Amino acid sequence: MSVAVMSENPAPTVAIIGLGLIGGSLALALRAAGEAGELLGFDTQPDAIAEGLARDVIDRALASPRDALAQADIVVLCVPTVVAADLLADLTRVAVRSGSSAIITDVASVKGGLEARMLAQHGCVPPRVVLGHPIAGSERSGVGAAREGLFRDHLTILTPDENTEADALADVSRLWRAAGASVVCMAVSTHDRMLAATSHLPHVLAYCLVDTLARSSHSEDVFRFAAGGFRDFTRIASSDPVMWRDVALANRGALLEAIDDFAQHLITLRAAIDAGDGDALLQTFTAAKTARDGFSALQARRDQS
Amino acid sequence: MSVAVMSENPAPTVAIIGLGLIGGSLALALRAAGEAGELLGFDTQPDAIAEGLARDVIDRALASPRDALAQADIVVLCVPTVVAADLLADLTRVAVRSGSSAIITDVASVKGGLEARMLAQHGCVPPRVVLGHPIAGSERSGVGAAREGLFRDHLTILTPDENTEADALADVSRLWRAAGASVVCMAVSTHDRMLAATSHLPHVLAYCLVDTLARSSHSEDVFRFAAGGFRDFTRIASSDPVMWRDVALANRGALLEAIDDFAQHLITLRAAIDAGDGDALLQTFTAAKTARDGFSALQARRDQS
Repeated sequence: MSVAVMSENPAPTVAIIGLGLIGGSLALALRAAGEAGELLGFDTQPDAIAEGLARDVIDRALASPRDALAQADIVVLCVPTVVAADLLADLTRVAVRSGSSAIITDVASVKGGLEARMLAQHGCVPPRVVLGHPIAGSERSGVGAAREGLFRDHLTILTPDENTEADALADVSRLWRAAGASVVCMAVSTHDRMLAATSHLPHVLAYCLVDTLARSSHSEDVFRFAAGGFRDFTRIASSDPVMWRDVALANRGALLEAIDDFAQHLITLRAAIDAGDGDALLQTFTAAKTARDGFSALQARRDQS
Repeated sequence: MSVAVMSENPAPTVAIIGLGLIGGSLALALRAAGEAGELLGFDTQPDAIAEGLARDVIDRALASPRDALAQADIVVLCVPTVVAADLLADLTRVAVRSGSSAIITDVASVKGGLEARMLAQHGCVPPRVVLGHPIAGSERSGVGAAREGLFRDHLTILTPDENTEADALADVSRLWRAAGASVVCMAVSTHDRMLAATSHLPHVLAYCLVDTLARSSHSEDVFRFAAGGFRDFTRIASSDPVMWRDVALANRGALLEAIDDFAQHLITLRAAIDAGDGDALLQTFTAAKTARDGFSALQARRDQS
């Protein structure tokens, strides 16, 4: 389908490759918003396809991801981060060969690996490939957990570069706004560094703390007497271990930097505690509280608007 | 008042020394439960006394903490951790001299310093002193934030030893159960080690992470794009910096041990990420998720019962 056809018809055919929580929720949101013509779906698991059709998440199943290139205006790769690069490499290779004008986008939590793969394969990120990442999720997973409101009031980050075609960027942006998200654009390296600091590092720290306590000799008591602060602090340690292993490795460089920054500061704090340096502790704790209160205020304004 | 008088009258006179969130909430809970005869209060801040009287948190103000020894059956020290040891030392000295039979208890987050002070001063924790710690709190503080339900479905830890009089322990236990808490007893060292692991360490880590990000060159973006997991993980970094400085220093030994255990494990995890050792990451993340899910299940059972 050509861009011209798309601009006459404001509801593009969208193919969701990977019918999990994210893909299923995007499909539901697009259908609710009337922003997709036909919704096509593919998954390696026949059960996911069956559930997607039964729940009216998608209209029609595709026999393979490659079929999406001929049948959809926008192909959204909603597969796990660890397989996203291979799939993107395959689809862009076929798209170039076949002259497909389909826009390809994705939802992977780490963007550096995908960009590197495109540079190696094509010398650039192809003009109709728009890498993206909706900052939303749940401890639940699978198409059964999908819900149309998952992206509402959340951010989706897109990482276009000077090579990206403007209409491709506009169409992907419109897709996410239709799903209720705000869209912001930034460089791949900024995205990966920022996500390392605010998401990947906290997950590593939460997993690390809970496993440290679970290994301790008094672990039963520890969990028996832990209170609300502990519950909030460690909630993300209930996240999918396979997904987070893959994210940690996919964003290895930025994550190691974030861990090192944190560890350096923890060493300083430990020394202050050891030395009984109350002034240093108070300074750090106060600065952190000020920053965290500012973050709360920012979130409150965002929730209101 | 003698123990004999107390057993005839099931509603003891209770003196709250320190009318903040905890003291005020305890007073409100005891009044609601009909478990206090007269409620006496003292605070170094006249405003807190005035608000306590105006809100009917207390019935009558005391001129000094020492007055509580002659006028109350149970004296509850609800002052900040950093001044609790001095106050306890003073009151127990006066109690011994005057032959007061008042029970003295407290709510400080760290018990080791109080116990050590009692051992230095009296050679033991006096038989009518029952050290305690309600595991409840709020980011808000002050008597204005007090509410009768603060301790409901929470735990209060008491740390009696072989020297503690049974009726003193029973009366303090009854007080907290009347306020809605479950009461458990353990050794002071166990309490301090456990709280270091489940509360003091998480606070240090949350403060450390937020301050690390706030100092980074891209701090504005970081807070702008952080999502729900970050919000939960860092909520406790909004806690009172002065209180947490004091807690960190009061529980220095146990906290340093907890930091070191955690840091050791973080070094191992960092090495696994650096080496691309997905198996090691998956093992740790899975063990943590299992432990955290177990904690959730435990909490759900507790909330139901």
